[in-house]
Amino acid sequence: MYDDSVLSAFKKLVSWLVEFKNMVVYIEKKYLDKNYLLSQDEEFVDHLETKLQTFEEGIDDLTGKIDMIICLGGDGTLLYASNFFQTNVPPVMAFNMGSLGFLTPFPFDNFKEQVTNVLEGHADLTLRYRLKCVVCKYGSESHKVSHIKHINHSDSKQSYLVLNEVVVDRAQSPYLSNVDLFVEGRLVTSVQGDGLIISTPTGSTAYAVSAGASMVHPSVPAIILCPICPHSLSFRPVIVPAGVEIKIMVAKNARSSVWLSFDGRNRQELMQGDCLRITTAQYPVPSICARDQIDDWFAGLAGCLHWNVRQQQKPLTSIPSSTSLDSVELSN
Amino acid sequence: MYDDSVLSAFKKLVSWLVEFKNMVVYIEKKYLDKNYLLSQDEEFVDHLETKLQTFEEGIDDLTGKIDMIICLGGDGTLLYASNFFQTNVPPVMAFNMGSLGFLTPFPFDNFKEQVTNVLEGHADLTLRYRLKCVVCKYGSESHKVSHIKHINHSDSKQSYLVLNEVVVDRAQSPYLSNVDLFVEGRLVTSVQGDGLIISTPTGSTAYAVSAGASMVHPSVPAIILCPICPHSLSFRPVIVPAGVEIKIMVAKNARSSVWLSFDGRNRQELMQGDCLRITTAQYPVPSICARDQIDDWFAGLAGCLHWNVRQQQKPLTSIPSSTSLDSVELSN
Amino acid sequence: MYDDSVLSAFKKLVSWLVEFKNMVVYIEKKYLDKNYLLSQDEEFVDHLETKLQTFEEGIDDLTGKIDMIICLGGDGTLLYASNFFQTNVPPVMAFNMGSLGFLTPFPFDNFKEQVTNVLEGHADLTLRYRLKCVVCKYGSESHKVSHIKHINHSDSKQSYLVLNEVVVDRAQSPYLSNVDLFVEGRLVTSVQGDGLIISTPTGSTAYAVSAGASMVHPSVPAIILCPICPHSLSFRPVIVPAGVEIKIMVAKNARSSVWLSFDGRNRQELMQGDCLRITTAQYPVPSICARDQIDDWFAGLAGCLHWNVRQQQKPLTSIPSSTSLDSVELSN
Amino acid sequence: MYDDSVLSAFKKLVSWLVEFKNMVVYIEKKYLDKNYLLSQDEEFVDHLETKLQTFEEGIDDLTGKIDMIICLGGDGTLLYASNFFQTNVPPVMAFNMGSLGFLTPFPFDNFKEQVTNVLEGHADLTLRYRLKCVVCKYGSESHKVSHIKHINHSDSKQSYLVLNEVVVDRAQSPYLSNVDLFVEGRLVTSVQGDGLIISTPTGSTAYAVSAGASMVHPSVPAIILCPICPHSLSFRPVIVPAGVEIKIMVAKNARSSVWLSFDGRNRQELMQGDCLRITTAQYPVPSICARDQIDDWFAGLAGCLHWNVRQQQKPLTSIPSSTSLDSVELSN
Repeated sequence: MYDDSVLSAFKKLVSWLVEFKNMVVYIEKKYLDKNYLLSQDEEFVDHLETKLQTFEEGIDDLTGKIDMIICLGGDGTLLYASNFFQTNVPPVMAFNMGSLGFLTPFPFDNFKEQVTNVLEGHADLTLRYRLKCVVCKYGSESHKVSHIKHINHSDSKQSYLVLNEVVVDRAQSPYLSNVDLFVEGRLVTSVQGDGLIISTPTGSTAYAVSAGASMVHPSVPAIILCPICPHSLSFRPVIVPAGVEIKIMVAKNARSSVWLSFDGRNRQELMQGDCLRITTAQYPVPSICARDQIDDWFAGLAGCLHWNVRQQQKPLTSIPSSTSLDSVELSN
Repeated sequence: MYDDSVLSAFKKLVSWLVEFKNMVVYIEKKYLDKNYLLSQDEEFVDHLETKLQTFEEGIDDLTGKIDMIICLGGDGTLLYASNFFQTNVPPVMAFNMGSLGFLTPFPFDNFKEQVTNVLEGHADLTLRYRLKCVVCKYGSESHKVSHIKHINHSDSKQSYLVLNEVVVDRAQSPYLSNVDLFVEGRLVTSVQGDGLIISTPTGSTAYAVSAGASMVHPSVPAIILCPICPHSLSFRPVIVPAGVEIKIMVAKNARSSVWLSFDGRNRQELMQGDCLRITTAQYPVPSICARDQIDDWFAGLAGCLHWNVRQQQKPLTSIPSSTSLDSVELSN
Repeated sequence: MYDDSVLSAFKKLVSWLVEFKNMVVYIEKKYLDKNYLLSQDEEFVDHLETKLQTFEEGIDDLTGKIDMIICLGGDGTLLYASNFFQTNVPPVMAFNMGSLGFLTPFPFDNFKEQVTNVLEGHADLTLRYRLKCVVCKYGSESHKVSHIKHINHSDSKQSYLVLNEVVVDRAQSPYLSNVDLFVEGRLVTSVQGDGLIISTPTGSTAYAVSAGASMVHPSVPAIILCPICPHSLSFRPVIVPAGVEIKIMVAKNARSSVWLSFDGRNRQELMQGDCLRITTAQYPVPSICARDQIDDWFAGLAGCLHWNVRQQQKPLTSIPSSTSLDSVELSN
Repeated sequence: MYDDSVLSAFKKLVSWLVEFKNMVVYIEKKYLDKNYLLSQDEEFVDHLETKLQTFEEGIDDLTGKIDMIICLGGDGTLLYASNFFQTNVPPVMAFNMGSLGFLTPFPFDNFKEQVTNVLEGHADLTLRYRLKCVVCKYGSESHKVSHIKHINHSDSKQSYLVLNEVVVDRAQSPYLSNVDLFVEGRLVTSVQGDGLIISTPTGSTAYAVSAGASMVHPSVPAIILCPICPHSLSFRPVIVPAGVEIKIMVAKNARSSVWLSFDGRNRQELMQGDCLRITTAQYPVPSICARDQIDDWFAGLAGCLHWNVRQQQKPLTSIPSSTSLDSVELSN
């Protein structure tokens, strides 16, 4: 909602949903506030605004009230939207506003046809796993009996849901991060290096692939453990079944703390003795496919892997062996 | 069965199974043949041989006759054994004869205790996916109507089951292999380079990891597509859900053919116009865990990733930064 | 000289060199032979052919006769041309016939201007290191005293010059190649895997980069040792100073032989006990730069690394942080 | 000088140098200060301390006063010592106190013999390139005429010498770093990702190899440009000739600043409009070899690449396939 093209698409979509489809539309309250472009748009304020429902983050509970989410914008929009739903998530239909993303398969041009189609039930869903991450502070666990009065328990255990990944890194520290990695309660290794990414399959094509992980289709029930610049040259990314419990712990005598971030947000320090517990969340994000699970994902891959998509139009006819891909292949 | 230590273990095991456990033991006939060490062992020939059942590859059908398979030796032994069972595979208990492998979790020392324990039902299983690979010759598909008399159909379609991987490579050819990769019937890319590995999660720790794939726990229902030295620098390994159909096709006008191998065996040429179809096989290999699915796998990883396993005994005390390790090479 | 566009360019170039520049032009004899397109071109045969000098591979010695080499075509053309000169190599001016290569920096459009410019001395040179590779057969070394009559010494020691790389691989063998690598006479490791690439900096952007090597500017005096799918996960490409002697040896008791190829040619088997000695050759290939050493190379890189070259036009003005690069960046 | 074993070695070495070799020994003043272990050692204070010369960082100029540097400890010790010499560096003899490092080839056991040997001139040198890094603040360049009074010029241009690497990273920022990379004055690409390492060959085996660079022998005259988790999947490490000028610039309109560190020290922010210029420094660090340039380096590699060094003793006899190794982690 930050530039004109998105704003214009938003108004077209909302007015069509409200006036022609007679649907009840919720919008986050802050977008109607004074500073936003929307509030400066007289036509919108006069004709549409009053017909919209609003909600506020941290105040309103949307559970059970929403039948479908529509996102406009980059992949970040969907990450943001999914965040409002800690339990059941309604199906998400995500429009890209120009460049195709892994999470935003729908082009906006013929949005009426596309939305109608989805509303009539002609759409596949990709169920995207999320990770539930719980930060446990050292004090809150070990000292809870003796120091009970001094600890604010509601603060000492924080929980986050991520759709892409949780990252453990050394941030500003000149020392390598050194955390212990437990799987199903057993210490499997101590991770030394710039950090560790714990990613969903959806997140495998985001940060994890830059750190060397394989790209995992979102329907594969798995968790990716990917070291960032590991000290040990043989430490490769490891993929475990969804459902196992991962624990990251900073040893009490570790040289330095580490830092966490959850889908790139909520940056915070994990101190010596603290730990982070990660499991597959019970409620996935059902994202609506533009074509189907396989097609949508490979269309997203084609761009970042420089796959020769143009061939897709003529699959079985003659394909010259040096099909190029202009600047894409090694010329030497 | 090729060296003395395995031979000696084999005799101990078989005599115990037959004489103390009163079990019916099958052994491949060729191991009792003249040239083998076993046949030169008088004690074995006199006392044990007559009590054993035998079978021959390609002649006897073992389906339904075997309740449990016991393997002695390296990971190759299990690959070999699983090959006898094209449909239901009995649970496999695999002993390593010294160095721990991904597929051979049991040490042989206390075999009686271990086997008894398993027979009493105290054991987890890891269900290992296999891939069914069908080679389709060009003639057999395209010309089947007109040239029906000249084609030997039973020859033109060959099927293999692999527990690790099927490899497509350029073998002796100086040209890069150039094959088209289809997923669920759609051409997704044309692969240029030394070749392509299509691997099970079990095989991910064998050849695929050397070519850069992430290591995938055998319980993750997935198929790994891993290019070998790809021409395009951005082509990364890709992991798709088990159940999709993969097709590899050599274009009719390709510069050269490619070569296939199935778990390192049955090497054969895939000519222009031929294709290879790969799907997850219906019948997995149930391999018996020494401890459990997670522990067994991480124990196997520890060696090849140089993970600091000994720390597991003393998780929270001081961990020297240069902890050295034991087994360095991939065992699988 | 295999397609019309190259043929047409060739005729334009040669007629201009001969008629306007009054230069003596040598062409390989086989291109004037019956089967080639050139011989079917009446105008060429009538007017130009008699003015050309010819030479034959393996028969004529060009040393000292040639002042400048001009190549038309892909990078392979330059590899081929350099092969005629085992000692001093004249400067090479290489035209690409469409797609920019690392070795072919000149566009053909304004060839007259470009050639004139070079002839007038306005050009930088990149001196490209070559590797001298000597294959030593087991018999010829060990038994030369006792069996001297039975060995044909001229056959048992073969020498090749490579501009890109020499490759040691397992070819059709199902076994991993297992060769011993010596540097300056000391065994440094035993290489297990698909093989080993010993590359010049020029070759680093060819096969070696696909196998994971860093890309090395051709002026860096170095040799790249790059394993292909190594069994040991920590075996990384290693770069040593030009001038050291590398020896590859197949142990006498190795399970299988390996195969060699030199710039993709002269494929041959290296048997148990044989060895291959590699040193930086005394005579480099001086290749003429279109702009200069640095610019030419980074122009070649830009394509295969997908670098955002278009920004080069406007280096210091506003560059949006999400500059894309259409299909080049990760969208997620 | 932080633990007993180093302290004890230090005293043995110094007393031998002073009393038997009659050499003048300089030691950094702070190590004789109250808080240090040395000052609490009565024997040392009484007998040795008065015979030592001292110097202080930032106060005394050691240029021309020192004939040889002796280091005790890890690789960090040599990084630290080289830092005192901005121009000519005396030869450095570095003892490891247990674990072999790339920079510390000498074992301490027979130090008298080793030092004597070196003093008699029986030693090879490895000349280790350093990078000269100059930080240019935006204000100081652009506004120096008009705002001359407000700028503290001595602050606005800072210079550092590094023996390993200079790192540009995003530190705490949630945004990808986005810097422009210039080589010899031309913009070659814009780097998006976690950051960029500009490394010497000596540093290639430190941080750069963890980020995917090849390992470069310290005698190769080159600079390594290695991206950290690059956004673009095809961006590989690039190696350019020593002597070129590298410039890193944060665009004036960049979304966020980046952070620098020089051999892991002097952490500082590089703001929008600022730049960092890097060239090969004129004065290398001559480090004394325990055996020779090639042997010392491959001995260091053997550990971190898990090379089968013990085979060096018995090159041509049977080599077990699962040879295990000793030191697992990168020592540098």
